[in-house]
Amino acid sequence: LLVDHPWARIELVCAERHAGQPLVRVFPQFRGRFEPNLEVFSPDRVASSAEVIFTALPHGASAAVVAALCQRGRVVIDLSADFRLRDSDVYASWYGGPHPVPALLEQAVYGLPELARDRIGSARLVACPGCYPTAAILAIAPLLARGLVRPDALVIDAKSGASGAGREPSASTHLPEAAEGVRPYQVAGEHRHTAEIEQVLSEVAGARVSLTFTPHLLPMSRGLLACVYARTVDPRLPEEAYRAALEEAYAEEPFVTVLEPGALPDTAHVRGSNRVQLSVRRDQRTDLGLGISALDNLVKGAAGQAIQCFNLLCGYPETTGLLGVAVFP
Amino acid sequence: LLVDHPWARIELVCAERHAGQPLVRVFPQFRGRFEPNLEVFSPDRVASSAEVIFTALPHGASAAVVAALCQRGRVVIDLSADFRLRDSDVYASWYGGPHPVPALLEQAVYGLPELARDRIGSARLVACPGCYPTAAILAIAPLLARGLVRPDALVIDAKSGASGAGREPSASTHLPEAAEGVRPYQVAGEHRHTAEIEQVLSEVAGARVSLTFTPHLLPMSRGLLACVYARTVDPRLPEEAYRAALEEAYAEEPFVTVLEPGALPDTAHVRGSNRVQLSVRRDQRTDLGLGISALDNLVKGAAGQAIQCFNLLCGYPETTGLLGVAVFP
Amino acid sequence: LLVDHPWARIELVCAERHAGQPLVRVFPQFRGRFEPNLEVFSPDRVASSAEVIFTALPHGASAAVVAALCQRGRVVIDLSADFRLRDSDVYASWYGGPHPVPALLEQAVYGLPELARDRIGSARLVACPGCYPTAAILAIAPLLARGLVRPDALVIDAKSGASGAGREPSASTHLPEAAEGVRPYQVAGEHRHTAEIEQVLSEVAGARVSLTFTPHLLPMSRGLLACVYARTVDPRLPEEAYRAALEEAYAEEPFVTVLEPGALPDTAHVRGSNRVQLSVRRDQRTDLGLGISALDNLVKGAAGQAIQCFNLLCGYPETTGLLGVAVFP
Amino acid sequence: LLVDHPWARIELVCAERHAGQPLVRVFPQFRGRFEPNLEVFSPDRVASSAEVIFTALPHGASAAVVAALCQRGRVVIDLSADFRLRDSDVYASWYGGPHPVPALLEQAVYGLPELARDRIGSARLVACPGCYPTAAILAIAPLLARGLVRPDALVIDAKSGASGAGREPSASTHLPEAAEGVRPYQVAGEHRHTAEIEQVLSEVAGARVSLTFTPHLLPMSRGLLACVYARTVDPRLPEEAYRAALEEAYAEEPFVTVLEPGALPDTAHVRGSNRVQLSVRRDQRTDLGLGISALDNLVKGAAGQAIQCFNLLCGYPETTGLLGVAVFP
Repeated sequence: LLVDHPWARIELVCAERHAGQPLVRVFPQFRGRFEPNLEVFSPDRVASSAEVIFTALPHGASAAVVAALCQRGRVVIDLSADFRLRDSDVYASWYGGPHPVPALLEQAVYGLPELARDRIGSARLVACPGCYPTAAILAIAPLLARGLVRPDALVIDAKSGASGAGREPSASTHLPEAAEGVRPYQVAGEHRHTAEIEQVLSEVAGARVSLTFTPHLLPMSRGLLACVYARTVDPRLPEEAYRAALEEAYAEEPFVTVLEPGALPDTAHVRGSNRVQLSVRRDQRTDLGLGISALDNLVKGAAGQAIQCFNLLCGYPETTGLLGVAVFP
Repeated sequence: LLVDHPWARIELVCAERHAGQPLVRVFPQFRGRFEPNLEVFSPDRVASSAEVIFTALPHGASAAVVAALCQRGRVVIDLSADFRLRDSDVYASWYGGPHPVPALLEQAVYGLPELARDRIGSARLVACPGCYPTAAILAIAPLLARGLVRPDALVIDAKSGASGAGREPSASTHLPEAAEGVRPYQVAGEHRHTAEIEQVLSEVAGARVSLTFTPHLLPMSRGLLACVYARTVDPRLPEEAYRAALEEAYAEEPFVTVLEPGALPDTAHVRGSNRVQLSVRRDQRTDLGLGISALDNLVKGAAGQAIQCFNLLCGYPETTGLLGVAVFP
Repeated sequence: LLVDHPWARIELVCAERHAGQPLVRVFPQFRGRFEPNLEVFSPDRVASSAEVIFTALPHGASAAVVAALCQRGRVVIDLSADFRLRDSDVYASWYGGPHPVPALLEQAVYGLPELARDRIGSARLVACPGCYPTAAILAIAPLLARGLVRPDALVIDAKSGASGAGREPSASTHLPEAAEGVRPYQVAGEHRHTAEIEQVLSEVAGARVSLTFTPHLLPMSRGLLACVYARTVDPRLPEEAYRAALEEAYAEEPFVTVLEPGALPDTAHVRGSNRVQLSVRRDQRTDLGLGISALDNLVKGAAGQAIQCFNLLCGYPETTGLLGVAVFP
Repeated sequence: LLVDHPWARIELVCAERHAGQPLVRVFPQFRGRFEPNLEVFSPDRVASSAEVIFTALPHGASAAVVAALCQRGRVVIDLSADFRLRDSDVYASWYGGPHPVPALLEQAVYGLPELARDRIGSARLVACPGCYPTAAILAIAPLLARGLVRPDALVIDAKSGASGAGREPSASTHLPEAAEGVRPYQVAGEHRHTAEIEQVLSEVAGARVSLTFTPHLLPMSRGLLACVYARTVDPRLPEEAYRAALEEAYAEEPFVTVLEPGALPDTAHVRGSNRVQLSVRRDQRTDLGLGISALDNLVKGAAGQAIQCFNLLCGYPETTGLLGVAVFP
């Protein structure tokens, strides 16, 4: 996305295992288009070369790198989970130990532009949310904010393509075993994103939100679909009221599409794009409603969101470099 | 499955569009193994040739055929939806018109052996449930039966391979558009299986069960995974109590595996087999629990279930011809 | 691609079956980005609205539309097969009847910029080749042009994603049956692209080229890989000589990457991009060499190639709007 | 396959890394059906427990284990590549060092029942061929045996599902990168199966066969399709003559289907079965013909073939336990 961005200049690309190799050997899609060598990370070298730095390290490993760059006065857009939780105790209870740099937690701004556009624009450290929280939060936040649904016992049933698991080969993403199958993992409060989603939605709702989160691995590369089930507060409200809440909340959003009645989100329709598709439905037989969202976990759920934050930070139009039409079929 | 069944003899195979053609031109997997010609359906010819008849027609079209065969004294195992609802009013409200043969509804036995084994054995007409009801019911029935979860506002979030949509090509199963994508359809009470699942679970629970049902289409051929979310009655009960309920309920079941703690169902592990995998989990952060089930929609969710009923009807051991190990990977 | 093209303005989009509907109902990837209504085709209306017209109709149906637009003085970029064969007799023998507008065949320029850049720039009618000919021709043309391989009895074994079959649902692209399988079709001289590839390669070689062409359908949406096997003329020439021929031929090509020794093409690495990857190998055990190419059948094998021709026609830099990095993974 | 085999009794299952674990933790498809613990391999223990032993170790590692079992008088069916090449010099040149147990090479019988049924029945060591050689050899052997095609410069273009790469996760089978893509590997004489195919086909032809072999990795789990291109000896012979040669050669074969004119092999139609589909075509435009074969690389290309040999060794009907219909769709 940065290669195709009209105003960004990529000063250097660092890597751990592959440092010293040509980028195109690791990411062959850049052949003929962008062919630097991967460099060893050095905070001094990086901080002196670039004004804004994207970090995308595993949680735990990211914090020290981010801290080193912040100390050197650089703006950091961090794609790890290290600065997304505000409360260091919550962090400790989910990540099995104290936060490595708790002082930075206060400075970090949660990088979801649809909720925190203004704060992102003036941040020094942006903690970009990943695919599950982005999809879950956008699907239900306006309903919670307006008090249309109850904040307790939300059910989030989310389905992700295998690229969400990262690039390290493992048994769970071994094509012969992962193709032609679907399975849940880390259900019933085991997945760490539970805390992050609860934190953000609680702020939105102005009340403690509790939820059960069930992620699934699907036999496809990209794409994430989330269904968020909630109990309605007023059983007499028609479906239109819920849709109107979403449409109103996202009326000015450049990347959020609230689908017309009758249409439902499909991850294939946002593949490779920074767009989110949303629907909301009300089940007449129960007191339940559900918000549904589809996005590309590697774009709006990761790198695209980071570029969106980058644009805000730099004062560029927010959509710069992000308007590419989805690759469908 | 019948071809490989040791005691069944297939007298004839009928078809509509393809009548007159060799079976292997329509279903090439039978080449070299079973090569009859497809015949035009005639109730007299069929009733005089076979003792037990499997019907697998679209809903609406099935009822008259089944009635003609029942009139001629044959035992019918019907894979359509025509005889699964007991109440002809419920049928009329979901299927847009009166039931074609309401008198037969009383005779029909719901063909889920795990719930109605004895009645199936002496039935003249078995209405075999399909993939969604089978997966949803088996995942939660024991918890409802024992009063461990509340019967209202269940959430059933189910994910199906594309073979569940049948063999007629359509835009929604066109590989270029269906591959690499996931999407829900007929959500929030639109899907007709909602009524069927509610009917069966209400009987099991001894109370009116209401639920919201969200089916999804996945980019794979076979396999169905269902998550059934319910509110627990006693928040102090540990997860073990729920698992124990499942284990007890299915202790003697030849095709149901309740997974050990830590394991979760995967449709790839039951592909091509008649087995169901189940897990149950309790979310400590909410008052929610969930049952999870995986099965092959074309075996335990369709043809395998029908053979299981056939074995019961004929007095064969229930597992005859159904013990084949799943095709994995 | 046109939506994202900086200097193109889309005046209108026509359709047959879907005329009158919003584009986004037919191609949902445009939601939020480009939302015109589809219009009925009228040659007068189209010719008076646009300077350059892209036609993408089935072969046979395209010729009359193209003729009507050419008559009205418009430049046409045709993606059908109707104007790719120069010889109307050859057309007649492969397409089962006389060419509808033989007079236009002379005017048509074969739209493969790597072979006919100059002629495309001044054309009034460009007949854009599709995925199979583009992949096959680019993989072997430089070796034939330089007399390094023999022109008789080439073997072209090509593998295509299912989007190559178009958007009409059919049994052969029905996901449950097309997933998890591979099959050849129209082999041994049955496929019409055989004639087109022979025509172009014969011109390149300055000798009659004959070949056998085997297309395959793969269980994926996009991507085309072709292996072209040929007998070498001089068995003593090392592999380097063949690679040098390719590198020399494509040294200035903006969209062709000749891979380094040891690397081999992968369609995943060009998905969504207009790039072609090429390798050439020499088998020491036989007198055979092979050229291998990978491209995205919907970009370099279709729409991207058309935009490349459009840029040449309009005098824009050839790469305008086509430099997007491949969507990988 | 052994679990479902009516006359085999599995005495023990050994493993390296997973020794001590329950089989079902490693191969979850056996849950509820076959649940032994995996044992450490000991030649004495194994030789004293079982009459026939299946070995499936990586090449190089297999030889010593096989030798230890043969020494103890056991019959071994080896699925590795260690005993497939007859000539220890050829082995050394392809496998980078001397054969570990050259004395056993003479005893080993190549386990392709269609070519060596009688010898397999009386063997003490069967070297079972894998998917590529089985598919390639069966597609062309009868034409070579009858002198209908020339033995030099065959082209074998083969396409395999990812399970052919084994169970060890790697970048090349990482679903996010392997899905939606196709790529060749080890082309132009680099793949070791080249030597094995040449050896067997040379014996069949009674002349030195040379070939170029191009394996491809496809985005699917199971299935292998091979196209074998050869020059015809007599250009006047009609296609029927080639088909007749195949039909005659395989008339009595229980697992080989020569498809009728107009039909072409599809791996989806043999998934999970031990069957091979074959077609042969003659290209009128060139002097080329091609044989095409489809099989399941894990059944006829591996375990099914081994059971077929096991049946021959034990004097059981050759099809025992192998007649299961393909799992399609």
